[in-house]
Parts: sequence; C-alpha cells; structure tokens
Amino acid sequence: MKKTRIAIIGGGPAGLLLSHILDLKGIDSIVLERQSKDYVLKRIRAGVLEYGTIKLLRDMGLGERMDREGHLHDGTHIVWQGRDPFFIDTVKYTGKPMMAYGQTAITEDLYAAREKAGAEIIDEAADVKLHDLTSDKPYVTYVKDGRQERIDCDFIAACDGFHGIGRQSIPADILKTYEQVYPFGWLGIMSETPPLPDIIYAQHDNGFALASQRNPMLSRYYIQCDVNADLNDWSDERFWEELKIRFPEELSSQIVTGPSIEKSIAPLRSFVAEPMRYGRMFLAGDAAHIVPPTGAKGLNLAVSDVYYLARAFETHYAKGDDAYLDGYSAMALRRVWSAERLSWWLTKLLHVFPQETPFEKKVRINDYDHLCVSERAQAALAEQYIGLPFED
Amino acid sequence: MKKTRIAIIGGGPAGLLLSHILDLKGIDSIVLERQSKDYVLKRIRAGVLEYGTIKLLRDMGLGERMDREGHLHDGTHIVWQGRDPFFIDTVKYTGKPMMAYGQTAITEDLYAAREKAGAEIIDEAADVKLHDLTSDKPYVTYVKDGRQERIDCDFIAACDGFHGIGRQSIPADILKTYEQVYPFGWLGIMSETPPLPDIIYAQHDNGFALASQRNPMLSRYYIQCDVNADLNDWSDERFWEELKIRFPEELSSQIVTGPSIEKSIAPLRSFVAEPMRYGRMFLAGDAAHIVPPTGAKGLNLAVSDVYYLARAFETHYAKGDDAYLDGYSAMALRRVWSAERLSWWLTKLLHVFPQETPFEKKVRINDYDHLCVSERAQAALAEQYIGLPFED
Repeated sequence: MKKTRIAIIGGGPAGLLLSHILDLKGIDSIVLERQSKDYVLKRIRAGVLEYGTIKLLRDMGLGERMDREGHLHDGTHIVWQGRDPFFIDTVKYTGKPMMAYGQTAITEDLYAAREKAGAEIIDEAADVKLHDLTSDKPYVTYVKDGRQERIDCDFIAACDGFHGIGRQSIPADILKTYEQVYPFGWLGIMSETPPLPDIIYAQHDNGFALASQRNPMLSRYYIQCDVNADLNDWSDERFWEELKIRFPEELSSQIVTGPSIEKSIAPLRSFVAEPMRYGRMFLAGDAAHIVPPTGAKGLNLAVSDVYYLARAFETHYAKGDDAYLDGYSAMALRRVWSAERLSWWLTKLLHVFPQETPFEKKVRINDYDHLCVSERAQAALAEQYIGLPFED
Repeated sequence: MKKTRIAIIGGGPAGLLLSHILDLKGIDSIVLERQSKDYVLKRIRAGVLEYGTIKLLRDMGLGERMDREGHLHDGTHIVWQGRDPFFIDTVKYTGKPMMAYGQTAITEDLYAAREKAGAEIIDEAADVKLHDLTSDKPYVTYVKDGRQERIDCDFIAACDGFHGIGRQSIPADILKTYEQVYPFGWLGIMSETPPLPDIIYAQHDNGFALASQRNPMLSRYYIQCDVNADLNDWSDERFWEELKIRFPEELSSQIVTGPSIEKSIAPLRSFVAEPMRYGRMFLAGDAAHIVPPTGAKGLNLAVSDVYYLARAFETHYAKGDDAYLDGYSAMALRRVWSAERLSWWLTKLLHVFPQETPFEKKVRINDYDHLCVSERAQAALAEQYIGLPFED
C-alpha cells in the first residue's frame, strides 16, 4: 500500500503539470496512468498555447525547449471566401503573443522534468477505482502487472480525460452535464513538410479548414468533414486537393504537400460537468469539460484548472486555509464557460452547418464583416482569444 | 393625371420623412397612403431613437418638439434575474445619447411640417399599383373616392411597409428574402401612468420584459408571451402582475399601474429583402426589412434608408450623378444586416426560447456575464446599440 498527499489520476499534460507544480511547492503526489508512457508520448493533440499557459510553463521551469522550438504568433488569421482576410491581433490588443508548440512536446518536457525530479508515475495502471471520496481518508485502487494495489491519500485530482473514472465517480444526482454536439468532424493530418508561416482559419462554402504547425518541418492541417466519413475515402491526395480549395489561391499555392504521418477524424463536442469537485476529488481538464478545437482552448483550460487546483492544495497545506479548495469549482468554471462560449461562437462563425438557414448564414457573414470594421469588436475578440488572465 | 418626380408609396414616418427631405432639396414628390390620416396618426409603434436619427431630425428642422418633449437617455439598463444589473452605456463609449420619443409623435411632427409646406399627401388611396418600373417612365395608379387616378413620375419610393405593394412588385426571380421567426410574441400595453425613469430590459426565467416611456405620464411596457395568446386572457391585472414578477423587487415596487389605453400582441420577426431596388423603384423601411423590436432598430433603419435614398435622388437631380442611386441597395443593406444581427443577438440574449438546450442557456448567461466584466465587449455593444454612423 502506498501513501501520498495527492493521488493524480491521469498522466497526460494536466496530471503531469499538476504533479510538477505540487512538487515545486513541496507537496508529494503519485500519478496513475492507464496507458503506457510510450502511448502517452505519442498522442497528437492540441498545439496552440495562450499567453497564460506560456507564462505558467516558464514560471514553473518548463519553458526552455518551448522557447527554443515553439513559434510565437501575434495572433491568428482568418481567410473568408470572397471577402478580405482578417487578423485576430492579440499582440496589438492585449500585448500578448500565442505560441505554436505541440502538446506532444509539452508532454515530453513534463515527463523529462518529472523523471528528473524522481517523481512516481505509474503507467499501465488498470481498473483504477476511487474510494471514500466524501470521507477524509479517500483512497485509490488499481491493478498493475496483475496485482491489486492501493494508494491512500488526502485528495484525488482526476485529470483523466473525458472517458475517465473521475467524473463517473460523481453521483448522478449531484453531477450536472451540459453538452452540444456538432454535425461535422475535423479530418486532420500531420505531414513532415514546411508549414505555412501563420496559423490560419479558412471559411469556405465547402467548410472550415485550418493551417497550423508544430515545427519548421511538421505541418498540421484540418478540414471540416462529415463526422461519419471513412478515413479510407480520404487519401492524402484527396485531402490536399480539398484543403487547397478551401484556402484562397495565394495561400493554397504555398501549401507544401507530402505524405501524411498521421490522419484521423475527430468529432466536435462542447461539454461541461458541474461541479468540478466531489468531496475530496477534484476534476481538471478534459475530465470536466471539452471544447471544440476551434479556438484551441482545450489544453489551455486544463492548464488553468491545474493552476487553480495547485494553488488550492498549496494554501491548504501551507496555511490550513481551504478557501481556494472550496472555491475551486466555481472559479475554474467561470473560465471554462468563457472558453466554451468563445469556442462555440468561433465554431459557429467558421463552419458550414448543414441546417443553417439563409438568414442565419447572412447574419454569420455579417458577424465577420462587423469584425473586419469594428476596432472594438476586434479588441473584444482578441482579449478572449488570448485567454482571460488567471483569476486571483 | 398627376405628375411628380418622386412618387412615395406610404405615408408613415419613412414616406413622410423622405418627402420632407426631398422638399428641402427642391425635389417635388407626392405621398400616397392607403389608410386615413387619422389612422396613421393613431398608430402606436416604436419609441427609441438612435443618435443618428435624432441628429437627422434636428438637421431637417424636425427636432423642436422632440427636444422639448422627448427624453434623452445615456443608454439602456439590463436587469437579469439573480445577477448584477448592467448598463449599455452609449454616452460613455460613443458620446451619443438615445432619445425616447414615440413614433406617433414623430408622425404628427412630420404631418405638421408637410402640411405647412403645402405638400401633397393623398390618404385613403386604394388599390395602388406600380407600373413600368424598369422603364424610364414609371407610373402609379390608385383609386381615390371611387375614381381611378394616375401619377407619372421619375422614380418610385416604396415606403409602404411589410405588407405593401412595393416589395411585391419585384419579380420572384430577382427578389431574395431572408426570414427568421421567433417562437414567442410581445404583449405590450400603454398606460397613462408615470413610467420608470429608464429604459430597462428584464431577463427572467418567465421571459423577457421591457419598461419604456413615451412622456412623463405615458408608460409603455412589454412582456414576452406566447405568440398565439388570446388578449382576452390578459386582463390588465394579470399583465401588471406578470410584469412585476419579471423585474427585480426594487424596480417592480416602483412600477405605477393603471388601466391600459392600448394592449396588443405582436409577433417577432427578422426579415430582409434583397435587393432594395428594382428598376426605378426603391424600397425603404419595413417594406424591405423587419427586425424584432429588441434593440429598437426598426424606425431607425427606416430613417437611415431614407437618408441614403434622399441623398441619391439629390445627387441625381443636382449633378446628374447616379452613383448613389446605383449604390443605394448595397449601402442600405450593409446597415440593415448589422442591425438585423444586433437585434437577433439581443433577442436571443434576453428571451426565453422554449427549445433552448441547457448548454445554450449556460452560454447565453455567460454572454451576459462576459458583458458585465469586459469593457471591450461593453464598448463593442454600445457602438452597435447607438447605431452605426450613416456611411458616406
């Protein structure tokens, strides 16, 4: 039987970052991960960091490689079929840049930092179960190498993603969930080709497209697709052809194509679970909320959850003050709902919805036109896009 | 047979204002109105003027009574059940106030000004028909006192409202219409009681409510209701009771009740017709577009249409330059779509939609919360709420 202060369920970026910050504050934790380390390190996910995330990673000693390999951007471009392009200028309106730096790289950095510190990360932990959450002696059981194991702890941080055990451990009469599904998915590919220099959203009658980048020889592109599409129907050739249609000629002519090294279709979902606490268990990241990837808020929300949660644990242990623990759910949810709203709005603005009426389409176009002419609308969008500051 | 330069169909505020401005520019017109003058003067409609409307009325010599009897407001209040109130502060963010001054009064002022100038306004003109619109000799026929009459003209301005003949005269293969209906209506009453001092939108789980005023002893109140409700089910007592529920206690205790002198249920509709020109006929106001009353844009849009149209006729006659005539539809529509979008957004923000999902409700509440905390969002809303400046 093991014992720790904080049992962290989930060894993705949220769980690893929480473990790292807690360690810096002298609070011990154990991370339990269902998958193997190799699997976790190979997952390809988000790649655009808000300024608050950049700053936190730097403050926590995790910024070195990010600052060397990541790519700072002053904002994000929108190209809209038949209209002038627009730039969400976060630097102009907020003084803050964004960073293109893949979640895969962040996870590598976190793993390296945790292992260097001698942290306990237990991977391939099967059948994780959470116990006695509303008592003051919660514990976690799991199976590792065929043996039943147990960790006693003060608190549990469930950073175990949308399908994890954390949220499922909250009784149905306490848990409220909010969900919006979208009638399309994103078909994404990764290719070892030089990317376009900017992050660019494209709005086209065929659907949304996105150009992003991981590093100077690694491109990430997405196109809106039928959520039930068959990957076998999407050869690389067909993908590149459709992608180029959705960007204006002056950009599509710059797109360097090549074989995909990863190709997948992801559904789009908005989801929030409330509250983000049950007894001595706290949810963070995808365990509590999902945003559609438009706006790149998912990883950034996980980071702000972890920031609030680490601070709450710190004040609990350092000062015996539980105000932040008690306020965690409400505080995190304020930021979550802001990001949910922005992600929903950007998704609606930039995608083609099969059921959209002609009136709604006109209004949507006018939303874009308004953005193009109103400095105030630009400023209001930029400050949300770069992410609200972490609250005190 | 009569002859004039501009035959104006419709003797509501749009038609009368156009006739008035054209007269100031030395361009003669005849106004044809289907109803009697008395009927027109008794219609109760909108009552909140954007700054651009205030200024235009003043510039055109129509501001004297408005400035004496109207009530300037620095903006509009929103009270939201269970949350802090918010103020759309148009003066703070744009330097421009709004004016509460009823459309009934504006129509009276316009009639007085037109009659003083000896204008020709033909009321009770039945069976109006528009002819040869794509020729350079259009004409209008109608029946007055049982006799068939005809007006030859250079141009026709159709200011004849949503049900008028103007829009109906555009061939179906040219006319595009965009429409959104809402699953509720507004039940409005007028009462000779002192109004609340401010224009106030109320958001409540029972539905939207609105406090407005026409003069110090004339109140205008609305509540969101079933669009198919029966007025007979809505006694004054029931109306006041429901109204007071929707406002917070500190406001509802200030509401002075009394017998209604007018009570009606209006459906809410968003509607736009494109283009706003067909040959030598031009649409202005409700003939081309309808907005839901949230945001009070209807009359103000009619005024900006008239401004663009009068200027187009003026440059045509004064300089032989048709650029403004040719650009009228596109220029007016830009402003129309902005107002449509804002009216739609405000309507969605403030009303209870029966089909709203829990997720959508949360996002809507967050929209309000965001407004309350973001100066930039406040500025962006205020500049749209006060109305975009008339374009050059």
